[in-house]
Amino acid sequence: MSALAITSAANPRIKAARALWLRKTRQESGLFLAEGLKIIGEALAAGRAPKTLIYAAETAGHPIFEAAAAAAGERLQVSPSLLAKISKRDNPQLALGVFEAVTTPLEQLDPAAAPAFIALEGVRDPGNLGAIVRTADAAGAGAVVLVGETCDPFSVEAVRATMGSIFAVPIARASRKAFLSWRVSWPGAVVGTSLASALDYRDADWRAPVLALMGAEQSGLTPELATTCDVLVKIPMRGRADSLNLAVAAGIVLYRAMGL
Amino acid sequence: MSALAITSAANPRIKAARALWLRKTRQESGLFLAEGLKIIGEALAAGRAPKTLIYAAETAGHPIFEAAAAAAGERLQVSPSLLAKISKRDNPQLALGVFEAVTTPLEQLDPAAAPAFIALEGVRDPGNLGAIVRTADAAGAGAVVLVGETCDPFSVEAVRATMGSIFAVPIARASRKAFLSWRVSWPGAVVGTSLASALDYRDADWRAPVLALMGAEQSGLTPELATTCDVLVKIPMRGRADSLNLAVAAGIVLYRAMGL
Repeated sequence: MSALAITSAANPRIKAARALWLRKTRQESGLFLAEGLKIIGEALAAGRAPKTLIYAAETAGHPIFEAAAAAAGERLQVSPSLLAKISKRDNPQLALGVFEAVTTPLEQLDPAAAPAFIALEGVRDPGNLGAIVRTADAAGAGAVVLVGETCDPFSVEAVRATMGSIFAVPIARASRKAFLSWRVSWPGAVVGTSLASALDYRDADWRAPVLALMGAEQSGLTPELATTCDVLVKIPMRGRADSLNLAVAAGIVLYRAMGL
Repeated sequence: MSALAITSAANPRIKAARALWLRKTRQESGLFLAEGLKIIGEALAAGRAPKTLIYAAETAGHPIFEAAAAAAGERLQVSPSLLAKISKRDNPQLALGVFEAVTTPLEQLDPAAAPAFIALEGVRDPGNLGAIVRTADAAGAGAVVLVGETCDPFSVEAVRATMGSIFAVPIARASRKAFLSWRVSWPGAVVGTSLASALDYRDADWRAPVLALMGAEQSGLTPELATTCDVLVKIPMRGRADSLNLAVAAGIVLYRAMGL
Protein backbone atom coordinates (compact mmCIF):
# COMPACT_ATOMS: atom_id res chain seq x y z
CA MET A 1 0.00 0.00 0.00
CA SER A 2 1.09 3.56 -0.47
CA ALA A 3 2.53 5.66 2.31
CA LEU A 4 0.82 8.54 4.01
CA ALA A 5 2.96 11.66 4.64
CA ILE A 6 2.27 13.34 7.96
CA THR A 7 3.70 16.63 9.16
CA SER A 8 1.62 17.52 12.22
CA ALA A 9 2.07 16.21 15.75
CA ALA A 10 -1.68 16.71 16.12
CA ASN A 11 -2.42 14.04 13.54
CA PRO A 12 -4.53 11.36 15.25
CA ARG A 13 -2.26 8.51 14.10
CA ILE A 14 0.79 10.28 15.57
CA LYS A 15 -1.08 11.01 18.78
CA ALA A 16 -2.06 7.34 18.99
CA ALA A 17 1.57 6.27 18.57
CA ARG A 18 2.76 8.72 21.24
CA ALA A 19 0.07 7.47 23.60
CA LEU A 20 1.78 4.06 23.56
CA TRP A 21 4.20 5.46 26.13
CA LEU A 22 1.31 5.04 28.58
CA ARG A 23 0.72 1.62 30.10
CA LYS A 24 -3.02 2.22 30.10
CA THR A 25 -3.04 2.86 26.35
CA ARG A 26 -0.94 -0.22 25.71
CA GLN A 27 -3.28 -2.35 27.78
CA GLU A 28 -6.40 -1.01 26.08
CA SER A 29 -5.01 -1.27 22.55
CA GLY A 30 -2.85 -4.36 22.95
CA LEU A 31 -0.14 -2.50 21.01
CA PHE A 32 3.39 -1.30 21.71
CA LEU A 33 6.16 0.73 20.10
CA ALA A 34 9.43 -0.77 18.89
CA GLU A 35 12.15 1.57 17.63
CA GLY A 36 14.85 1.10 15.05
CA LEU A 37 15.57 -1.18 12.13
CA LYS A 38 17.52 -3.64 14.29
CA ILE A 39 14.48 -4.38 16.47
CA ILE A 40 12.06 -4.23 13.54
CA GLY A 41 14.29 -6.75 11.77
CA GLU A 42 14.02 -9.07 14.77
CA ALA A 43 10.25 -8.74 14.59
CA LEU A 44 10.23 -9.71 10.92
CA ALA A 45 12.52 -12.67 11.66
CA ALA A 46 9.94 -13.83 14.20
CA GLY A 47 7.20 -13.52 11.59
CA ARG A 48 5.74 -10.40 13.15
CA ALA A 49 4.78 -7.50 10.89
CA PRO A 50 4.26 -3.96 12.16
CA LYS A 51 0.66 -2.81 12.14
CA THR A 52 2.02 0.66 11.51
CA LEU A 53 5.46 1.62 10.27
CA ILE A 54 6.45 5.22 11.02
CA TYR A 55 9.60 6.39 9.31
CA ALA A 56 11.69 9.18 7.90
CA ALA A 57 12.38 9.33 4.18
CA GLU A 58 16.10 8.68 4.79
CA THR A 59 15.49 5.02 5.62
CA ALA A 60 14.14 4.18 2.17
CA GLY A 61 16.27 1.58 0.42
CA HIS A 62 17.49 -0.17 3.58
CA PRO A 63 16.60 -3.85 3.13
CA ILE A 64 15.04 -4.22 6.59
CA PHE A 65 13.00 -1.10 6.01
CA GLU A 66 11.83 -2.31 2.62
CA ALA A 67 10.84 -5.70 4.06
CA ALA A 68 9.01 -4.02 6.95
CA ALA A 69 7.28 -1.60 4.60
CA ALA A 70 6.08 -4.45 2.41
CA ALA A 71 4.66 -6.27 5.44
CA ALA A 72 3.27 -3.31 7.37
CA GLY A 73 -0.44 -2.71 7.78
CA GLU A 74 0.08 0.99 7.13
CA ARG A 75 3.02 3.27 6.51
CA LEU A 76 3.39 6.81 7.78
CA GLN A 77 6.22 8.94 6.48
CA VAL A 78 7.11 11.69 8.93
CA SER A 79 9.80 14.26 9.58
CA PRO A 80 12.72 13.45 11.91
CA SER A 81 11.36 16.03 14.33
CA LEU A 82 8.07 14.15 14.56
CA LEU A 83 10.02 10.92 15.15
CA ALA A 84 11.86 12.72 17.95
CA LYS A 85 8.52 13.65 19.51
CA ILE A 86 7.23 10.08 19.35
CA SER A 87 10.50 8.64 20.70
CA LYS A 88 11.10 11.45 23.22
CA ARG A 89 14.69 11.52 21.99
CA ASP A 90 16.80 14.17 20.37
CA ASN A 91 18.31 11.64 18.00
CA PRO A 92 15.48 9.21 17.32
CA GLN A 93 15.70 6.01 15.34
CA LEU A 94 14.51 6.69 11.80
CA ALA A 95 11.93 3.91 11.78
CA LEU A 96 9.41 2.90 14.43
CA GLY A 97 6.95 0.05 14.38
CA VAL A 98 3.66 -0.34 16.19
CA PHE A 99 3.24 -4.03 17.00
CA GLU A 100 0.73 -6.24 18.73
CA ALA A 101 1.86 -7.18 22.23
CA VAL A 102 1.94 -10.96 22.34
CA THR A 103 2.15 -12.98 25.53
CA THR A 104 2.04 -16.75 25.91
CA PRO A 105 -0.38 -18.36 28.37
CA LEU A 106 1.51 -20.28 31.08
CA GLU A 107 -0.16 -23.54 30.05
CA GLN A 108 1.25 -23.22 26.56
CA LEU A 109 4.87 -23.12 27.75
CA ASP A 110 6.58 -26.42 27.04
CA PRO A 111 9.12 -27.29 29.77
CA ALA A 112 10.85 -29.57 27.28
CA ALA A 113 11.52 -26.69 24.92
CA ALA A 114 14.69 -25.49 26.68
CA PRO A 115 17.05 -26.43 29.53
CA ALA A 116 16.05 -23.36 31.54
CA PHE A 117 13.27 -20.84 32.03
CA ILE A 118 13.23 -17.74 34.21
CA ALA A 119 10.40 -16.34 36.32
CA LEU A 120 10.56 -12.85 37.83
CA GLU A 121 8.36 -11.78 40.69
CA GLY A 122 7.61 -8.09 41.06
CA VAL A 123 10.43 -6.76 38.89
CA ARG A 124 10.17 -2.94 38.84
CA ASP A 125 12.81 -1.53 36.55
CA PRO A 126 12.06 -1.68 32.80
CA GLY A 127 15.77 -1.52 31.95
CA ASN A 128 16.41 -4.57 34.12
CA LEU A 129 13.44 -6.44 32.67
CA GLY A 130 14.48 -5.66 29.10
CA ALA A 131 18.07 -6.72 29.77
CA ILE A 132 16.82 -9.98 31.30
CA VAL A 133 14.66 -10.73 28.24
CA ARG A 134 17.76 -10.09 26.11
CA THR A 135 19.83 -12.41 28.31
CA ALA A 136 17.16 -15.11 28.24
CA ASP A 137 17.25 -14.94 24.46
CA ALA A 138 21.06 -15.03 24.31
CA ALA A 139 21.27 -17.95 26.72
CA GLY A 140 18.56 -19.86 24.88
CA ALA A 141 16.11 -19.94 27.78
CA GLY A 142 12.55 -21.07 27.08
CA ALA A 143 10.58 -18.09 28.38
CA VAL A 144 10.42 -15.16 30.77
CA VAL A 145 7.51 -15.53 33.17
CA LEU A 146 6.34 -12.40 34.99
CA VAL A 147 4.69 -13.14 38.33
CA GLY A 148 2.46 -10.73 40.22
CA GLU A 149 2.64 -6.99 39.65
CA THR A 150 5.66 -6.14 37.55
CA CYS A 151 6.72 -3.39 35.23
CA ASP A 152 5.53 -3.77 31.65
CA PRO A 153 7.78 -5.68 29.23
CA PHE A 154 6.13 -3.72 26.40
CA SER A 155 7.03 -0.26 27.73
CA VAL A 156 9.26 1.74 25.40
CA GLU A 157 12.18 1.56 27.87
CA ALA A 158 11.89 -2.19 28.36
CA VAL A 159 11.59 -2.90 24.64
CA ARG A 160 14.68 -0.74 23.97
CA ALA A 161 16.66 -2.74 26.53
CA THR A 162 15.63 -6.05 24.92
CA MET A 163 17.38 -4.98 21.68
CA GLY A 164 14.79 -7.00 19.77
CA SER A 165 14.67 -10.06 22.01
CA ILE A 166 11.11 -9.09 22.97
CA PHE A 167 10.17 -10.79 19.68
CA ALA A 168 12.37 -13.86 20.22
CA VAL A 169 11.50 -14.97 23.76
CA PRO A 170 8.04 -16.08 24.88
CA ILE A 171 6.73 -13.77 27.62
CA ALA A 172 4.15 -15.11 30.07
CA ARG A 173 2.30 -13.26 32.80
CA ALA A 174 0.67 -14.84 35.80
CA SER A 175 -0.76 -13.99 39.18
CA ARG A 176 1.07 -15.53 42.15
CA LYS A 177 -1.79 -17.96 42.55
CA ALA A 178 -1.76 -19.09 38.92
CA PHE A 179 2.02 -19.41 39.00
CA LEU A 180 1.99 -21.52 42.17
CA SER A 181 -0.56 -23.87 40.71
CA TRP A 182 1.28 -24.15 37.36
CA ARG A 183 4.62 -24.70 39.11
CA VAL A 184 3.31 -27.90 40.78
CA SER A 185 3.73 -29.87 37.58
CA TRP A 186 7.14 -28.39 36.67
CA PRO A 187 9.31 -31.42 35.85
CA GLY A 188 12.75 -29.98 36.78
CA ALA A 189 14.33 -28.02 39.61
CA VAL A 190 12.72 -24.77 40.73
CA VAL A 191 15.70 -22.70 41.90
CA GLY A 192 15.07 -19.42 43.68
CA THR A 193 17.61 -16.77 44.60
CA SER A 194 17.71 -15.35 48.09
CA LEU A 195 20.26 -13.19 49.85
CA ALA A 196 19.29 -15.06 53.03
CA SER A 197 20.26 -18.45 51.63
CA ALA A 198 23.50 -20.06 52.75
CA LEU A 199 23.71 -22.32 49.69
CA ASP A 200 26.21 -21.24 47.04
CA TYR A 201 24.49 -21.33 43.64
CA ARG A 202 27.28 -23.55 42.31
CA ASP A 203 26.42 -26.26 44.84
CA ALA A 204 22.72 -26.55 44.02
CA ASP A 205 21.02 -29.27 42.00
CA TRP A 206 20.23 -27.56 38.69
CA ARG A 207 18.19 -30.45 37.29
CA ALA A 208 16.88 -29.53 33.82
CA PRO A 209 14.54 -28.12 32.90
CA VAL A 210 15.44 -25.46 35.46
CA LEU A 211 12.87 -22.89 36.45
CA ALA A 212 14.91 -20.04 37.94
CA LEU A 213 12.88 -17.74 40.16
CA MET A 214 14.02 -14.26 41.16
CA GLY A 215 12.35 -11.49 43.15
CA ALA A 216 12.10 -7.72 42.95
CA GLU A 217 15.08 -5.36 43.02
CA GLN A 218 14.74 -4.24 46.62
CA SER A 219 12.69 -6.87 48.32
CA GLY A 220 13.50 -10.18 46.63
CA LEU A 221 11.03 -13.05 46.54
CA THR A 222 7.93 -12.94 48.69
CA PRO A 223 7.78 -15.73 51.29
CA GLU A 224 4.95 -17.27 49.26
CA LEU A 225 7.17 -17.75 46.23
CA ALA A 226 10.35 -18.48 48.17
CA THR A 227 8.71 -21.48 49.83
CA THR A 228 7.60 -22.96 46.52
CA CYS A 229 11.24 -23.30 45.38
CA ASP A 230 12.96 -26.68 45.55
CA VAL A 231 16.06 -24.86 46.64
CA LEU A 232 17.13 -21.30 47.44
CA VAL A 233 20.59 -20.27 46.37
CA LYS A 234 22.86 -17.29 46.80
CA ILE A 235 25.43 -15.85 44.44
CA PRO A 236 28.57 -15.47 46.57
CA MET A 237 29.76 -11.96 47.40
CA ARG A 238 33.27 -11.20 48.48
CA GLY A 239 33.27 -7.43 48.83
CA ARG A 240 31.24 -4.69 50.51
CA ALA A 241 28.25 -4.87 48.15
CA ASP A 242 25.42 -6.86 49.68
CA SER A 243 23.59 -7.49 46.41
CA LEU A 244 23.94 -7.43 42.65
CA ASN A 245 21.96 -5.53 40.07
CA LEU A 246 18.97 -7.77 39.20
CA ALA A 247 19.82 -8.08 35.51
CA VAL A 248 23.44 -8.97 36.34
CA ALA A 249 22.32 -11.58 38.88
CA ALA A 250 19.83 -13.00 36.37
CA GLY A 251 22.61 -13.31 33.80
CA ILE A 252 24.81 -15.30 36.18
CA VAL A 253 21.86 -17.49 37.20
CA LEU A 254 20.62 -18.08 33.64
CA TYR A 255 24.02 -19.02 32.29
CA ARG A 256 24.47 -21.45 35.18
CA ALA A 257 20.94 -22.81 34.71
CA MET A 258 21.65 -23.41 31.03
CA GLY A 259 24.94 -25.09 31.89
CA LEU A 260 26.80 -22.43 29.92
CA MET B 1 29.92 22.48 63.36
CA SER B 2 26.42 23.86 63.26
CA ALA B 3 24.09 23.40 60.33
CA LEU B 4 23.09 26.09 57.89
CA ALA B 5 19.42 26.18 56.89
CA ILE B 6 18.85 27.05 53.24
CA THR B 7 15.52 27.68 51.56
CA SER B 8 16.42 29.18 48.19
CA ALA B 9 17.47 27.33 45.05
CA ALA B 10 19.46 30.45 44.19
CA ASN B 11 21.77 29.93 47.16
CA PRO B 12 25.32 29.58 45.81
CA ARG B 13 25.98 26.36 47.76
CA ILE B 14 22.84 24.75 46.29
CA LYS B 15 23.73 25.98 42.81
CA ALA B 16 27.19 24.48 43.24
CA ALA B 17 25.69 21.12 44.25
CA ARG B 18 23.31 21.14 41.29
CA ALA B 19 26.18 21.97 38.96
CA LEU B 20 27.73 18.60 39.86
CA TRP B 21 25.36 17.05 37.32
CA LEU B 22 27.73 18.49 34.73
CA ARG B 23 30.88 16.59 33.87
CA LYS B 24 32.78 19.82 33.35
CA THR B 25 31.95 21.01 36.87
CA ARG B 26 32.94 17.65 38.35
CA GLN B 27 36.25 17.74 36.52
CA GLU B 28 37.01 21.30 37.59
CA SER B 29 36.00 20.82 41.20
CA GLY B 30 37.07 17.21 41.67
CA LEU B 31 33.75 16.65 43.46
CA PHE B 32 30.67 14.51 42.90
CA LEU B 33 27.20 13.93 44.36
CA ALA B 34 26.18 10.76 46.17
CA GLU B 35 22.56 10.35 47.21
CA GLY B 36 20.97 8.52 50.09
CA LEU B 37 22.01 7.20 53.47
CA LYS B 38 22.87 3.75 52.06
CA ILE B 39 25.55 5.20 49.78
CA ILE B 40 26.70 7.75 52.35
CA GLY B 41 27.06 4.88 54.81
CA GLU B 42 29.30 3.05 52.34
CA ALA B 43 31.40 6.19 52.05
CA LEU B 44 31.84 6.38 55.82
CA ALA B 45 32.72 2.68 55.93
CA ALA B 46 35.46 3.43 53.42
CA GLY B 47 36.74 6.26 55.62
CA ARG B 48 35.40 8.95 53.31
CA ALA B 49 33.58 11.91 54.83
CA PRO B 50 31.29 14.20 52.83
CA LYS B 51 32.67 17.66 52.24
CA THR B 52 29.09 18.86 52.31
CA LEU B 53 26.07 17.04 53.67
CA ILE B 54 22.74 18.30 52.32
CA TYR B 55 19.70 16.94 54.08
CA ALA B 56 16.09 17.31 55.11
CA ALA B 57 15.20 17.66 58.78
CA GLU B 58 13.42 14.27 58.71
CA THR B 59 16.70 12.35 58.57
CA ALA B 60 17.88 13.58 61.97
CA GLY B 61 18.37 10.73 64.41
CA HIS B 62 19.24 8.09 61.81
CA PRO B 63 22.60 6.63 62.89
CA ILE B 64 24.17 6.91 59.43
CA PHE B 65 23.01 10.48 59.16
CA GLU B 66 24.39 11.34 62.58
CA ALA B 67 27.74 9.76 61.76
CA ALA B 68 27.86 11.59 58.42
CA ALA B 69 26.87 14.86 60.05
CA ALA B 70 29.64 14.51 62.62
CA ALA B 71 32.21 13.87 59.89
CA ALA B 72 30.97 16.34 57.26
CA GLY B 73 32.89 19.47 56.35
CA GLU B 74 29.67 21.45 56.31
CA ARG B 75 26.00 20.71 56.77
CA LEU B 76 23.15 22.29 54.84
CA GLN B 77 19.61 21.68 55.97
CA VAL B 78 17.16 22.15 53.12
CA SER B 79 13.52 21.48 52.24
CA PRO B 80 12.54 18.26 50.44
CA SER B 81 11.62 20.38 47.42
CA LEU B 82 15.17 21.71 47.24
CA LEU B 83 16.48 18.13 47.51
CA ALA B 84 14.18 17.22 44.62
CA LYS B 85 15.72 20.04 42.57
CA ILE B 86 19.26 18.90 43.31
CA SER B 87 18.43 15.23 42.63
CA LYS B 88 16.12 15.95 39.67
CA ARG B 89 13.68 13.49 41.21
CA ASP B 90 10.15 13.81 42.48
CA ASN B 91 10.94 11.61 45.45
CA PRO B 92 14.54 12.45 46.33
CA GLN B 93 16.69 10.78 48.91
CA LEU B 94 16.61 12.82 52.11
CA ALA B 95 20.37 13.14 52.42
CA LEU B 96 22.97 13.92 49.77
CA GLY B 97 26.70 14.10 50.14
CA VAL B 98 29.25 16.02 48.12
CA PHE B 99 32.43 13.95 48.03
CA GLU B 100 35.88 14.19 46.53
CA ALA B 101 36.21 12.02 43.43
CA VAL B 102 39.09 9.65 44.11
CA THR B 103 40.81 7.61 41.44
CA THR B 104 43.81 5.35 41.83
CA PRO B 105 46.81 5.72 39.52
CA LEU B 106 47.37 2.55 37.48
CA GLU B 107 50.82 2.08 38.97
CA GLN B 108 49.35 1.90 42.46
CA LEU B 109 47.11 -1.06 41.64
CA ASP B 110 48.50 -4.23 43.19
CA PRO B 111 47.83 -7.27 40.97
CA ALA B 112 48.26 -9.46 44.04
CA ALA B 113 45.38 -7.74 45.81
CA ALA B 114 42.63 -9.83 44.16
CA PRO B 115 42.16 -12.81 41.82
CA ALA B 116 40.61 -10.60 39.14
CA PHE B 117 40.47 -7.03 37.86
CA ILE B 118 38.33 -5.59 35.09
CA ALA B 119 39.23 -3.00 32.48
CA LEU B 120 36.59 -1.33 30.30
CA GLU B 121 37.43 0.43 27.07
CA GLY B 122 35.10 3.15 25.89
CA VAL B 123 32.07 2.23 28.02
CA ARG B 124 29.30 4.77 27.27
CA ASP B 125 26.31 4.05 29.47
CA PRO B 126 26.55 5.31 33.07
CA GLY B 127 24.00 2.73 34.24
CA ASN B 128 26.15 -0.05 32.82
CA LEU B 129 29.32 1.40 34.31
CA GLY B 130 27.72 1.81 37.73
CA ALA B 131 26.35 -1.73 37.66
CA ILE B 132 29.80 -3.06 36.71
CA VAL B 133 31.44 -1.22 39.62
CA ARG B 134 28.79 -2.78 41.87
CA THR B 135 29.47 -6.23 40.41
CA ALA B 136 33.23 -5.79 40.77
CA ASP B 137 32.68 -4.98 44.42
CA ALA B 138 30.34 -7.93 44.97
CA ALA B 139 32.68 -10.35 43.24
CA GLY B 140 35.68 -9.05 45.15
CA ALA B 141 37.57 -7.80 42.10
CA GLY B 142 40.60 -5.60 42.64
CA ALA B 143 39.68 -2.55 40.57
CA VAL B 144 37.76 -1.15 37.63
CA VAL B 145 40.12 0.37 35.08
CA LEU B 146 38.61 2.78 32.53
CA VAL B 147 40.55 2.92 29.29
CA GLY B 148 40.28 5.69 26.72
CA GLU B 149 37.23 7.93 26.54
CA THR B 150 34.47 6.56 28.72
CA CYS B 151 31.45 7.89 30.52
CA ASP B 152 32.15 9.32 33.95
CA PRO B 153 31.98 6.94 36.93
CA PHE B 154 31.24 9.96 39.11
CA SER B 155 28.14 11.09 37.23
CA VAL B 156 24.97 11.07 39.30
CA GLU B 157 23.50 8.20 37.24
CA ALA B 158 26.61 6.05 37.49
CA VAL B 159 27.00 6.62 41.22
CA ARG B 160 23.34 5.69 41.75
CA ALA B 161 23.86 2.43 39.86
CA THR B 162 26.90 1.56 42.00
CA MET B 163 24.66 1.51 45.10
CA GLY B 164 27.66 2.68 47.12
CA SER B 165 30.32 0.46 45.57
CA ILE B 166 31.90 3.59 44.06
CA PHE B 167 33.51 3.96 47.50
CA ALA B 168 34.53 0.31 47.82
CA VAL B 169 36.27 -0.43 44.52
CA PRO B 170 39.41 1.36 43.31
CA ILE B 171 38.73 3.18 40.04
CA ALA B 172 41.61 3.85 37.67
CA ARG B 173 41.62 5.85 34.45
CA ALA B 174 44.14 5.50 31.68
CA SER B 175 44.71 6.42 28.08
CA ARG B 176 45.04 3.48 25.71
CA LYS B 177 48.75 4.14 25.51
CA ALA B 178 49.25 4.18 29.27
CA PHE B 179 47.14 1.05 29.64
CA LEU B 180 49.09 -0.84 26.99
CA SER B 181 52.37 0.01 28.64
CA TRP B 182 51.10 -0.89 32.14
CA ARG B 183 49.62 -4.14 30.89
CA VAL B 184 53.04 -5.42 29.79
CA SER B 185 53.99 -6.29 33.34
CA TRP B 186 50.61 -7.83 34.27
CA PRO B 187 51.48 -11.16 35.90
CA GLY B 188 48.31 -13.12 35.05
CA ALA B 189 46.08 -13.75 32.05
CA VAL B 190 44.70 -10.77 30.14
CA VAL B 191 41.35 -12.07 28.87
CA GLY B 192 39.39 -9.96 26.41
CA THR B 193 35.84 -10.52 25.23
CA SER B 194 35.04 -10.45 21.54
CA LEU B 195 31.92 -11.48 19.65
CA ALA B 196 34.27 -12.49 16.84
CA SER B 197 36.16 -15.01 18.99
CA ALA B 198 35.46 -18.71 18.54
CA LEU B 199 36.76 -19.60 22.01
CA ASP B 200 34.10 -20.33 24.64
CA TYR B 201 34.92 -18.36 27.78
CA ARG B 202 34.75 -21.56 29.82
CA ASP B 203 37.61 -23.05 27.83
CA ALA B 204 40.10 -20.22 28.31
CA ASP B 205 43.07 -20.14 30.66
CA TRP B 206 41.93 -17.81 33.46
CA ARG B 207 45.30 -17.69 35.21
CA ALA B 208 45.07 -15.43 38.26
CA PRO B 209 45.36 -12.58 38.63
CA VAL B 210 43.00 -12.21 35.68
CA LEU B 211 42.74 -8.88 33.93
CA ALA B 212 39.40 -9.04 32.10
CA LEU B 213 39.12 -6.55 29.26
CA MET B 214 35.81 -5.53 27.69
CA GLY B 215 34.93 -2.98 25.02
CA ALA B 216 32.16 -0.47 24.44
CA GLU B 217 28.48 -1.36 24.18
CA GLN B 218 28.17 -1.15 20.41
CA SER B 219 31.66 -1.52 19.08
CA GLY B 220 33.53 -3.80 21.48
CA LEU B 221 37.29 -3.61 21.91
CA THR B 222 39.37 -1.59 19.49
CA PRO B 223 41.88 -3.70 17.51
CA GLU B 224 44.64 -2.02 19.52
CA LEU B 225 43.31 -3.41 22.79
CA ALA B 226 42.07 -6.69 21.37
CA THR B 227 45.57 -7.56 20.21
CA THR B 228 47.09 -6.93 23.62
CA CYS B 229 44.97 -9.72 25.16
CA ASP B 230 46.50 -13.12 25.87
CA VAL B 231 43.24 -14.64 24.73
CA LEU B 232 39.91 -13.46 23.35
CA VAL B 233 36.82 -15.29 24.52
CA LYS B 234 33.15 -15.31 23.71
CA ILE B 235 30.19 -15.94 25.97
CA PRO B 236 28.13 -18.58 24.12
CA MET B 237 24.78 -17.52 22.71
CA ARG B 238 22.07 -19.97 21.86
CA GLY B 239 19.20 -17.77 20.73
CA ARG B 240 18.55 -14.91 18.34
CA ALA B 241 20.33 -12.24 20.39
CA ASP B 242 23.79 -11.57 19.04
CA SER B 243 25.11 -9.88 22.17
CA LEU B 244 24.47 -9.33 25.85
CA ASN B 245 23.99 -6.14 27.78
CA LEU B 246 27.51 -5.00 28.78
CA ALA B 247 26.86 -5.09 32.53
CA VAL B 248 25.34 -8.58 32.26
CA ALA B 249 28.31 -9.82 30.21
CA ALA B 250 30.72 -8.24 32.70
CA GLY B 251 28.94 -10.05 35.53
CA ILE B 252 29.34 -13.42 33.84
CA VAL B 253 32.98 -12.68 33.02
CA LEU B 254 33.87 -11.35 36.47
CA TYR B 255 32.32 -14.26 38.32
CA ARG B 256 34.19 -16.67 36.04
CA ALA B 257 37.41 -14.68 36.42
CA MET B 258 37.07 -14.84 40.19
CA GLY B 259 36.38 -18.57 40.04
CA LEU B 260 32.94 -17.98 41.60
